[in-house]
Amino acid sequence: MRSKRRINGFQPGVRAELVMIGTEMLLGEIIDTNAARIAERLAGAGIHVYFKTTVGDNWTRIAAALSQALTRADVVITSGGLGPTDDDLTREVVAAVLGRRLVEHPEAMRQVEAWFQRQNRPMSPSNRKQALVPEGSEIIPNRRGTAPGIIARRGEQAVICLPGVPHELEAMMDETVLPFLVRNFSPSGRLWSRVLKFYGIGESALAELLQDLLTMDNPTVATYAGNGEVRVRITARAADEVGARELLEPVERDIRNRAGEFLYGTGDDTLESAAGRALKAAGWTLAVAESCTGGLIGSRITSVPGSSDYFAGGAVAYSNRAKVDLLGVPAGLLDQYGAVSEPVARAMAVGAAQRLGAHVGLAVTGIAGPGGGTADKPVGLVYIGLAVGGEAEVRRYQFAGDRDRVRWLTSQAALDLVRRRAEAGAQGLGISPGA
Amino acid sequence: MRSKRRINGFQPGVRAELVMIGTEMLLGEIIDTNAARIAERLAGAGIHVYFKTTVGDNWTRIAAALSQALTRADVVITSGGLGPTDDDLTREVVAAVLGRRLVEHPEAMRQVEAWFQRQNRPMSPSNRKQALVPEGSEIIPNRRGTAPGIIARRGEQAVICLPGVPHELEAMMDETVLPFLVRNFSPSGRLWSRVLKFYGIGESALAELLQDLLTMDNPTVATYAGNGEVRVRITARAADEVGARELLEPVERDIRNRAGEFLYGTGDDTLESAAGRALKAAGWTLAVAESCTGGLIGSRITSVPGSSDYFAGGAVAYSNRAKVDLLGVPAGLLDQYGAVSEPVARAMAVGAAQRLGAHVGLAVTGIAGPGGGTADKPVGLVYIGLAVGGEAEVRRYQFAGDRDRVRWLTSQAALDLVRRRAEAGAQGLGISPGA
Repeated sequence: MRSKRRINGFQPGVRAELVMIGTEMLLGEIIDTNAARIAERLAGAGIHVYFKTTVGDNWTRIAAALSQALTRADVVITSGGLGPTDDDLTREVVAAVLGRRLVEHPEAMRQVEAWFQRQNRPMSPSNRKQALVPEGSEIIPNRRGTAPGIIARRGEQAVICLPGVPHELEAMMDETVLPFLVRNFSPSGRLWSRVLKFYGIGESALAELLQDLLTMDNPTVATYAGNGEVRVRITARAADEVGARELLEPVERDIRNRAGEFLYGTGDDTLESAAGRALKAAGWTLAVAESCTGGLIGSRITSVPGSSDYFAGGAVAYSNRAKVDLLGVPAGLLDQYGAVSEPVARAMAVGAAQRLGAHVGLAVTGIAGPGGGTADKPVGLVYIGLAVGGEAEVRRYQFAGDRDRVRWLTSQAALDLVRRRAEAGAQGLGISPGA
Repeated sequence: MRSKRRINGFQPGVRAELVMIGTEMLLGEIIDTNAARIAERLAGAGIHVYFKTTVGDNWTRIAAALSQALTRADVVITSGGLGPTDDDLTREVVAAVLGRRLVEHPEAMRQVEAWFQRQNRPMSPSNRKQALVPEGSEIIPNRRGTAPGIIARRGEQAVICLPGVPHELEAMMDETVLPFLVRNFSPSGRLWSRVLKFYGIGESALAELLQDLLTMDNPTVATYAGNGEVRVRITARAADEVGARELLEPVERDIRNRAGEFLYGTGDDTLESAAGRALKAAGWTLAVAESCTGGLIGSRITSVPGSSDYFAGGAVAYSNRAKVDLLGVPAGLLDQYGAVSEPVARAMAVGAAQRLGAHVGLAVTGIAGPGGGTADKPVGLVYIGLAVGGEAEVRRYQFAGDRDRVRWLTSQAALDLVRRRAEAGAQGLGISPGA
């Protein structure tokens, strides 16, 4: 849900167009995620994207798309077609459209060679092509792959060529392209935004709480839902950071007053990083016992750098034997109540904390589907247990969706429980590990 | 990498263009997944998509994109802008570009009203707009939402307007649009394809093995790299499945002969499903001990329905204490060699199999970064241990990339080791669990 005034309210500024190159996108074989990566960064820098054109690996059609973009835009950004093979045509077409020769760029060649050295891989002759650029271009270093990018200027315009590999493109946008654009195409006012992240409230309920804010002009407020959580983005147009803060902060405070109960973080925070921060603040360690999620919660927690400070480890207790052997769940409980039950979730949580000497034990057991459901215990039924200082509480959830969705929503709920408990803990409750 | 003849080689057929409408795509707030949904269906029906243009909710730019598409294409498919609000402009712009009046379509109105009745929701006056179509158009029923789609014909051309909501669009493509296109724009033959999946060989090395095949016309062969593996797609143009098989199968056999050593599956197979299939065929169970991956491998294995048949569980042995307590790794080994070492990987693998009574124990320990690296043990260093029937082998890897990438590549390498070992095991080696 967004205010439709959000764009119309702004003055015209620098115009950008995107040209995405790759036949596989036109065959539906891959989803283009790069365009969103580029576009959100440009939006953040106050640069508008007016058109995005996707073409296959075809000389004529790439040239047509590029030529047309140059009739309308200040900045044209391409993605894809910088590889070493015959159908990687971007550098040739850009040179032709700009009327330049293609020349070997010595620093680009050095970077291509260095990349192969770092990877301990032989460089094939075809990779020499990756150091070719339209005469007079600058290159964009690529820490994560072979092909450097290209910045080719023509008068006031710039054509920027990036590879199609997402993690390469992302780093190059952040490290080189955005600073270049801000230096050379700085719009009069920039967009500054702040993202607030919520768990435990639906998008429409949150939008109702914020209803009057969603129609404001500057800053604008918009809600987005996805992956079992809701984000609110506050965007202000201002000349500098001080001006932006004056616009953003009162609105953020207002939103926190209305919905703070569900707010878990801001910006790049995730439920795993928020839970980690709360554990660290409380001085607590966490152990997990996962059944239906099979390691997903541990994987999310350890995706955060530095998580070894507060994460003790855990058990992927997929089988009953693992629940007994690794966590000390009494076999009798499993027989009497079944693996997906409140008493077993409790015993798993307590067992994980004890076995690993952790302050907090988190356990999940449930039926992710598609098979395994019964009338009593349908697919999507999940118990989540949390043991802190010898006391364990267990909650029962009924999630809807396929296997992946049930597992994901389980991990969301579990991480939020840990976060809330550790935040409360950081405010004073003393406990000892593994009690 | 793909053969550039892949598209050029086919007889010119029906040309389609896509016009995706919605400002949020140009702000990077949403990723356009609809284009891939439409494109893969068109590819399956033998219709080529040559250009895809994305524009915001702006009258002039939608009109520009649509007019241009009509100069080049037989079929233009739009997505988005059919909602009830003021910035939903698609029906108005299509009418204007085709030079038609916008009229209320009685059947469309009936369907909009019926939808609100089914939802037990009051219909707002603005929803009446959703029954407007360019004069002379057919409508596309929308079972899943309010707005019917539109098919507007001009001479031999057709403009097809679909909503932006993915599950509505998907059903309308399948139920109405594809049958319409096959009836009216039926190409001489359909495309049939087969995907082979490889691990352990780079894209350029594989392309070299298949070099002569990559320039064939029918079927075409193309390679794609991503996420630490390589796919090969063989695509044949044929009137029916029998004809397609005759074209595809000899080429598939040829590719298997040349590169079968690295082939792990086809179609929707993943390394986790292939490893699972191999374990099941061998009648083996697997236990995992994860340090740097923190649960990612368990999570991938258990993402496969039915994995409880062969997955015993595992330990997320992130801390040294977890390695000792859950896996029985001797504390002396950790002191002497450090957690990231060959002896510890071996002890973790053996310990996981023993503790869980599994045939196979898989262990990973490494430095995912960004911190924790030293000159001796740099970021990206990973040991993977595999214990089968009491015998453990350990391999040393040096991966490049950020934390997420190192973890992902580790999980790829680990799953492939399990798959290879279990495939060999299924061919005869008898072992007993947890030995």
